[in-house]
Amino acid sequence: MFTGLSAFPLTPITDDAIDEKAFAVLVQRLAAAGVDSIGALGSTGSYAYLTREERARAARMAVQHADGTPVIVGIGALRTRHVLEAAEDAQNAGAAGVLLAPMSYQRLTDDDAFGLYEDVSAHLSVPLVVYDNPGTTHFTFSDELYARVAALPRVASVKIPGVPADPAAAQTRVHHLRQLLPDTVTVGVSGDALAATGLNAGCDAWYSVLAGTFPEPALTLTRAARSGDASRARAESERLQPLWDLFARYGSLRVVAAAAAHLALTPPHNLPRPLSGLDTDGRAEVAAVLEQLGLSA
Amino acid sequence: MFTGLSAFPLTPITDDAIDEKAFAVLVQRLAAAGVDSIGALGSTGSYAYLTREERARAARMAVQHADGTPVIVGIGALRTRHVLEAAEDAQNAGAAGVLLAPMSYQRLTDDDAFGLYEDVSAHLSVPLVVYDNPGTTHFTFSDELYARVAALPRVASVKIPGVPADPAAAQTRVHHLRQLLPDTVTVGVSGDALAATGLNAGCDAWYSVLAGTFPEPALTLTRAARSGDASRARAESERLQPLWDLFARYGSLRVVAAAAAHLALTPPHNLPRPLSGLDTDGRAEVAAVLEQLGLSA
Repeated sequence: MFTGLSAFPLTPITDDAIDEKAFAVLVQRLAAAGVDSIGALGSTGSYAYLTREERARAARMAVQHADGTPVIVGIGALRTRHVLEAAEDAQNAGAAGVLLAPMSYQRLTDDDAFGLYEDVSAHLSVPLVVYDNPGTTHFTFSDELYARVAALPRVASVKIPGVPADPAAAQTRVHHLRQLLPDTVTVGVSGDALAATGLNAGCDAWYSVLAGTFPEPALTLTRAARSGDASRARAESERLQPLWDLFARYGSLRVVAAAAAHLALTPPHNLPRPLSGLDTDGRAEVAAVLEQLGLSA
Repeated sequence: MFTGLSAFPLTPITDDAIDEKAFAVLVQRLAAAGVDSIGALGSTGSYAYLTREERARAARMAVQHADGTPVIVGIGALRTRHVLEAAEDAQNAGAAGVLLAPMSYQRLTDDDAFGLYEDVSAHLSVPLVVYDNPGTTHFTFSDELYARVAALPRVASVKIPGVPADPAAAQTRVHHLRQLLPDTVTVGVSGDALAATGLNAGCDAWYSVLAGTFPEPALTLTRAARSGDASRARAESERLQPLWDLFARYGSLRVVAAAAAHLALTPPHNLPRPLSGLDTDGRAEVAAVLEQLGLSA
């Protein structure tokens, strides 16, 4: 389950509530496309903004509409107690696994973060993905902490924030991670622009923002890399460069939110306030890139 | 109300719930000492970790135990809807004002942050303190944004994260802020180590972590600066340097949490997990500094 393509859909928010119809459609698209897993309530799924009740409901809906595709549910929260509640709700919803980022308001020490994973893993009955996303959590894992956390029960995968852009350096990095982590723990790349480099360097999985809205090109890239066709994976990533450029400029969430709206998969405004999404010019840029890449229908 | 010394108490968390008895005692100490306002549920009060119900309860308790001292209640949350709920609860609790930091998970644009303050100020019936705390929110205000937000209705004060350490540069900075902000909006310094410099440079208020647990030395410093005795304010700050050094090393929250525990104002563990507080060595350092400064009883 923690290999191949994991697709992270938006949780569309319309009029300050989850747009359940739109969310169901997004999840169904992913299952129909044949992604290897669905990452519901990831950062792209705005987990950090939702109430316990909203998260529990979205987890149940994701499992219900995933048509048997394994669903990994994000359980992060600032407080351990709320993480444990989200874990319980995710398990009750039928999640095949959970994903946990060390969210922070006050800076976390390494011991604080380790304690969080220790407390949560002790209460879990499904596998856990360690979610390293310093851009949103403002917490940076050391390699030593990766190793400590990965040795905890239930830990099945580490979602790393990227790999070096240079293929040889990426290979060295992934090799180094393999030495640190138990054999049972997979390494998944995120940061979509680096996915081909990461998969070609030996990452087992791609935890993908793009795939949550556009599963097909992400599957093309992943299948090529996983079957050893590194150059085809690289070519698909290069073809998608205009999207990666938009991700870098505006953040991947705002870009896929505008893209989903452009495809009429959601209403125009689909993010939780205060996130206002892209302005008119930004939305026009997204629409133009989708057109150019043949992704606008 | 938004001048002088505003003291920010801990909200002690014991066995994963607010320790109401300890919280009441902390608030009563501040009122008895004669601080100018009490900042309940600030960053030091762990607002970001608490549920809506816990925050509403703590706001009511703070007002109840403040003995007429104005209480400013922190209303920050990642989602605008939750900020509005916290604002409503704070007002119902009898808050004299509210304090709002632009918390972030996804990076906020300036327009996102402005939209947050615009939405909230439109719903408020009490004054608002704009809370700029990049260390926890990971959002940085530009001067232009200060000016836009400060022009909104209800905005009564800006809590700035500090001033330049050099007294002349601090004066230039505070003077510049005065030009940007309406005359009705006060400027309050935070970052306790810079409080004397900020007050001596003309800041109207000190939003103080130290004062939440140790109101007396903070009052000495504030009264000196506000009465024009800059050198006495500076001397008091210099006397407290060993505490500022601990704040810089461990973060002010962990230090005052350990200090409150050392004074037996709270049980040893008083922070919401995953924050584990200082280890034994850190606590011993805090105890030694309190002893040295005559603050250990």
